[in-house]
Amino acid sequence: MATSQAAEPILDIAHLGNIEILSPKPAESLDYFVNILGMENVHTEGNSVYLRGYGDYATSTVKLTAAKAPGVGCVSWRASSPQALERRAQAIQDSGLGIGWTNGEYGRGPAFRFNDPEGHIMEVYYEETAYEAPDNLKSKLKNLPQRYTGRGINVRRIDHLALLAKDVASNREFAQDLLGLKLREQVRFNDGQTEIGSWLSPNPVHHQMAYVTDVKGGTARVHHFGLWVDEQQDVLRAAEILMEAGIFIEAGPSKHNNSQGFYLYHYEPGGNRMEVYSGSYLVFAPDFKPVTWNEDERGTGVYWGAALPDSFLNYATPDVEATPEAAAAPKVPIFDTH
Amino acid sequence: MATSQAAEPILDIAHLGNIEILSPKPAESLDYFVNILGMENVHTEGNSVYLRGYGDYATSTVKLTAAKAPGVGCVSWRASSPQALERRAQAIQDSGLGIGWTNGEYGRGPAFRFNDPEGHIMEVYYEETAYEAPDNLKSKLKNLPQRYTGRGINVRRIDHLALLAKDVASNREFAQDLLGLKLREQVRFNDGQTEIGSWLSPNPVHHQMAYVTDVKGGTARVHHFGLWVDEQQDVLRAAEILMEAGIFIEAGPSKHNNSQGFYLYHYEPGGNRMEVYSGSYLVFAPDFKPVTWNEDERGTGVYWGAALPDSFLNYATPDVEATPEAAAAPKVPIFDTH
Amino acid sequence: MATSQAAEPILDIAHLGNIEILSPKPAESLDYFVNILGMENVHTEGNSVYLRGYGDYATSTVKLTAAKAPGVGCVSWRASSPQALERRAQAIQDSGLGIGWTNGEYGRGPAFRFNDPEGHIMEVYYEETAYEAPDNLKSKLKNLPQRYTGRGINVRRIDHLALLAKDVASNREFAQDLLGLKLREQVRFNDGQTEIGSWLSPNPVHHQMAYVTDVKGGTARVHHFGLWVDEQQDVLRAAEILMEAGIFIEAGPSKHNNSQGFYLYHYEPGGNRMEVYSGSYLVFAPDFKPVTWNEDERGTGVYWGAALPDSFLNYATPDVEATPEAAAAPKVPIFDTH
Amino acid sequence: MATSQAAEPILDIAHLGNIEILSPKPAESLDYFVNILGMENVHTEGNSVYLRGYGDYATSTVKLTAAKAPGVGCVSWRASSPQALERRAQAIQDSGLGIGWTNGEYGRGPAFRFNDPEGHIMEVYYEETAYEAPDNLKSKLKNLPQRYTGRGINVRRIDHLALLAKDVASNREFAQDLLGLKLREQVRFNDGQTEIGSWLSPNPVHHQMAYVTDVKGGTARVHHFGLWVDEQQDVLRAAEILMEAGIFIEAGPSKHNNSQGFYLYHYEPGGNRMEVYSGSYLVFAPDFKPVTWNEDERGTGVYWGAALPDSFLNYATPDVEATPEAAAAPKVPIFDTH
Repeated sequence: MATSQAAEPILDIAHLGNIEILSPKPAESLDYFVNILGMENVHTEGNSVYLRGYGDYATSTVKLTAAKAPGVGCVSWRASSPQALERRAQAIQDSGLGIGWTNGEYGRGPAFRFNDPEGHIMEVYYEETAYEAPDNLKSKLKNLPQRYTGRGINVRRIDHLALLAKDVASNREFAQDLLGLKLREQVRFNDGQTEIGSWLSPNPVHHQMAYVTDVKGGTARVHHFGLWVDEQQDVLRAAEILMEAGIFIEAGPSKHNNSQGFYLYHYEPGGNRMEVYSGSYLVFAPDFKPVTWNEDERGTGVYWGAALPDSFLNYATPDVEATPEAAAAPKVPIFDTH
Repeated sequence: MATSQAAEPILDIAHLGNIEILSPKPAESLDYFVNILGMENVHTEGNSVYLRGYGDYATSTVKLTAAKAPGVGCVSWRASSPQALERRAQAIQDSGLGIGWTNGEYGRGPAFRFNDPEGHIMEVYYEETAYEAPDNLKSKLKNLPQRYTGRGINVRRIDHLALLAKDVASNREFAQDLLGLKLREQVRFNDGQTEIGSWLSPNPVHHQMAYVTDVKGGTARVHHFGLWVDEQQDVLRAAEILMEAGIFIEAGPSKHNNSQGFYLYHYEPGGNRMEVYSGSYLVFAPDFKPVTWNEDERGTGVYWGAALPDSFLNYATPDVEATPEAAAAPKVPIFDTH
Repeated sequence: MATSQAAEPILDIAHLGNIEILSPKPAESLDYFVNILGMENVHTEGNSVYLRGYGDYATSTVKLTAAKAPGVGCVSWRASSPQALERRAQAIQDSGLGIGWTNGEYGRGPAFRFNDPEGHIMEVYYEETAYEAPDNLKSKLKNLPQRYTGRGINVRRIDHLALLAKDVASNREFAQDLLGLKLREQVRFNDGQTEIGSWLSPNPVHHQMAYVTDVKGGTARVHHFGLWVDEQQDVLRAAEILMEAGIFIEAGPSKHNNSQGFYLYHYEPGGNRMEVYSGSYLVFAPDFKPVTWNEDERGTGVYWGAALPDSFLNYATPDVEATPEAAAAPKVPIFDTH
Repeated sequence: MATSQAAEPILDIAHLGNIEILSPKPAESLDYFVNILGMENVHTEGNSVYLRGYGDYATSTVKLTAAKAPGVGCVSWRASSPQALERRAQAIQDSGLGIGWTNGEYGRGPAFRFNDPEGHIMEVYYEETAYEAPDNLKSKLKNLPQRYTGRGINVRRIDHLALLAKDVASNREFAQDLLGLKLREQVRFNDGQTEIGSWLSPNPVHHQMAYVTDVKGGTARVHHFGLWVDEQQDVLRAAEILMEAGIFIEAGPSKHNNSQGFYLYHYEPGGNRMEVYSGSYLVFAPDFKPVTWNEDERGTGVYWGAALPDSFLNYATPDVEATPEAAAAPKVPIFDTH
């Protein structure tokens, strides 16, 4: 039988693997990640601590690195096979955005490092060490990588991150064409001519990365990091814990219109916006038609709940206004943050 | 750089697309699907009614068909591209289990029909008509295919089904090799020599199909159909609704050890076991190592909550004991159920 | 042994019994109460429909009455014994605020009617007809007065109402001294000199009535009516239902600081502010020390979640601004609303 | 007007104040109460540790006492006024079950101690020291007595306890007549002639004490202690925590038919059955008609969920079978448990 001869979709990236989060207050941030979010500290190396959620299969999914200013370090993607890794590395190299191969991070094999058009640092890798819990962290559930400790908010796994970019379109196209991420939703103003934000994913999770316009014209900044809990009730419980801990809640618990995510935005001690997140929806359709929202439909991005505050639109890390010195500082090298 | 030269994984099946459910009491079953589960009746054709959950993107995901006995009709899988469909059709045809091409079901394009080794009827297709809600069912959310009606249990989407087989291993291998489904968990008794059950999926959903040993030696039977709700609290609420409706609850709400699924098993009026389901976990690792449970680890399949009752192990549809005549009857033709 | 000789607390009022809600759009309001809130219509009499939640033991707990403007009609309190009723009637009569005895509303025995200082109409009664569900509404649970239908938001019972008053203190004192309600929380500005709001209850429910300053200087107005659901998740689900129904959500789901209530404020079609409510806390201490909040502590009344909007402070029913004619109209007689 | 001349209800007991729990493994039990249940250790005196839930207004609501066998020590009730205390003391003294006045427990004023007919030790008191949290436990919420720590199951407050008795009727009558508790539900077998269990409360909480037949003929034993969490989801989360901690779950999370309680029964290290509890319903009617269940209606006491296991009917503390010596031992003196 005859079928369409369109090119097949790229399925080379399996999932978001690790997020490096920069903090100018590493001790306070670490306390937050361990005691408020409930993540485990699995390794320390140089100026970085490697962390994990109880449901993450990989040894580490968050790398917390001491730095002069908050922000995002390296965003790591796991390839779906060794061949897929090679294909992505070659394609990115050909695009001129490649940096080169590294021996890989703690717990991971060789990685091909590159920049997105905005200048964020990323890498793709295939080999990954599955987590082996020490005895005190072994779960009674054979299929759970680590004990459900119930400590703090007890996030299960990393889910996504939202990056800022001066030009959303070129970064979104890079993610689609070179990484094979699928476009899920967009916000476009001015009759669709101005691309305000795009949400993308390599798998059925609604989005694992978003690009949103940097209204301040900063460089390679990050809007927020999203961590998953299984139930909306867990997000409500997180609000109780954050309040008692004196951590500023910026917005939520409420529900976004785009993504249908149930969110709770707050700032970790280092200044980065964090999201405790649940809900949303899985996308299974291979020909999913991206949903586009215009000015009126988008509003402030809320389905139910109060309008998102101005800070949600204006604040990101590093903060170009509040800490001009830090923001003006050259990007802190990932492996030399002294 | 050098990487492993192992064959790449097959990524040709995107997701479970449609489940055909046979009922000897079609009117009562339809009332259950619409008013208890809260699904929408979108189409009637011959002896079948086409149904959908409010979050399903496809026009229909459950086909309810009048039949002499309860059980499963055709299980349909959506391919990830036209090329993927052709590859799967060719591979299955080469295996000798192919039946042939059909023009496709309501809302879908051409499908290649086949049997699994046990004899269940399946098909794979690519073209799918995305659902367009009529005005009274349009959602206020632009990215929700259909209004959240809140009626009854209000299941969001189909999730999985569990089939019975006289020989689990051969069917599991078929699903892995010919469909490209990934093995997630297994129950193996006798030092791993007896394969009792296997849970598989083509995507990060933990399992979209399971094969479990048919202890009664029936043919092409089904254990249960699983429908998704977003929150564990929705499963508890479902129990309230089922109780008031006088529908027999067989087990749950409780949590499985394998799959970590939060389950509520009950029988629809036609006799099929249905599961209202949430929780579980997504599998992102391309090299996920299947989790195997032995007799002791498995128990009755419960993590917390009471042991599953004997009926859970012994009852399936069609029921080889309670309705010998029905069970002995030849499989009802899918398109001729008069 | 010697103990304090202070007067014993008045324990004559058992609970809030019935709320009469006035609507200028009675048909639309009735549809909201039945299909959105999920209450049952148990009786129609004159211009009123009598409604109930599935968990209310009394035959009716909300009386919806057609009127020229939205607002509150009669607020009814159940006494804890026949003697308690007589004591309260006598005390109120002596205070000069009594109106007199009536034969009682549908399902209730004789009631003593009176005004609070602000002019709201209230009554106290003892005899109450317990609800007997018709067959189609009988619950499978012997201790549940009515079937859990699961329809719409499915509110379980009435919880409280908040009335406006030009002088909160005098009304609060009336409720304490004449009804025996216990003060639970207060908002006081200007070093405690200005009483902005007081929350009171005759039983361990945190508050069944609040008095809040009428910033517009209206007369005998109402701020909102609160209806109970058992779980916070039910409040989130209510937001989904309200959104799809196109009903304006003013605030929430979020959590108050005072009362710890988990709220979802919206306007029913007649214009009255309704609250779907859960959480809060029970007060068991007979010597509970009322909690007082000053300007800074109170903020807009939110613990976590966005600030309450201006409308929450400025809008009430009847609306003195939007419908000057309606608001200027004499109070609609309860039993003659033609 | 004329009203009934029936005696007015006794409203002299405000609430269950404190439960003394005996443990032969006090260190392990203490770890459970603090780290699994999430209660706070506020005081140590002799062989007892005083504990509280984050929402309890009193300084201590559970007294954990080292003893030779598990079981219940003194059950303390708070009176609603000084006069109420004197009335109850006098009435109980007159009944012949009085023991006498004590100076009161830690944080409480004088108490009148007595036995119920079965021989359980109880007391009634009025003066109570409201909890003042130390700085590290102060809540950000002014109306919350203590910080919501989120540690472990994080129970909010004590809710109830279930005592065993050789003769339920006489103990139930004692609680009604001498304490003024209201009867809420009963299980009666043999056409109502055999009283199996009775659930009673002094306030709208469904039951704060139950008497259930001691099928083993023990003396002054206890079936379980019930601790409250606000949400059903909290009970599910408790199951995760208990499982990971290796604590035996006997039944649940599931829903009782009588009381509608959402239960999770397990054994603390000392051997006592504990219940993490939510749901149920408040009783506001002053003339509430007790609900009676016969053999058929009662079943094993489950609404939805699996049948309660035999141990639920047969095991209590102290265990007359497993530890005959301990059970045969004279009741451990409350203040001399060395």
